[in-house]
Amino acid sequence: MSDTLSVSAFLAAVNFNADGLVPVIAQDAENGDVLMMAWMNYQTLAETLRTGQLTYWSRSRSERWRKGETSGHTQELVEAGIDCDGDTLLFRVRQKGPACHTGARSCFYRRLDTPASEAGDRGR
Amino acid sequence: MSDTLSVSAFLAAVNFNADGLVPVIAQDAENGDVLMMAWMNYQTLAETLRTGQLTYWSRSRSERWRKGETSGHTQELVEAGIDCDGDTLLFRVRQKGPACHTGARSCFYRRLDTPASEAGDRGR
Repeated sequence: MSDTLSVSAFLAAVNFNADGLVPVIAQDAENGDVLMMAWMNYQTLAETLRTGQLTYWSRSRSERWRKGETSGHTQELVEAGIDCDGDTLLFRVRQKGPACHTGARSCFYRRLDTPASEAGDRGR
Repeated sequence: MSDTLSVSAFLAAVNFNADGLVPVIAQDAENGDVLMMAWMNYQTLAETLRTGQLTYWSRSRSERWRKGETSGHTQELVEAGIDCDGDTLLFRVRQKGPACHTGARSCFYRRLDTPASEAGDRGR
């Protein structure tokens, strides 16, 4: 089950929140790893779709930032998805270098140390 | 690069937003597909970690909901991750049936129809 949308239909399908923002999940197109989650407004989303370079809105600095603009760790758009109610986007990307400012490949490098083993025990 | 946290350290690491909520990305532990994004408050997050069953907070209904409670399409926790600044969670899950209320396996079944081919063209 997969529906395809034009750029205008895609933009129209987005339900921006009260601050005019939508969360974007960036997923590594090569191995499926979730790299990071950040926010876009209408303008940075339209710029991302137009340029193919992931461009976000910084809530803390209240400014546009193109991923990798200073670090060189750019994200090239491979596939843009939108969820059933239009309030979350899923972008598959070609990530150059680490996605995280800490130098980690993914921002999700911290994990709870118990559930996997517990889940494994449950399955036995 | 991967750090492991105890349950208490994990809970303490979460930066809930002004509404006391944190976005949670649910990823299929089997194939890496991103299934959905929803929200948890402190209580439903603690319940999720304690029970191993993904339990969210509905912003529209202002109530707790355990995934699959009515549909049977439960999500069992396999691995819980948290991002560098603690404001997004990534939970790998065993998804029973479809994750989306539309019946789609993933909520992200709608896609922009151009970028993949454009990105491919760029690479040539």
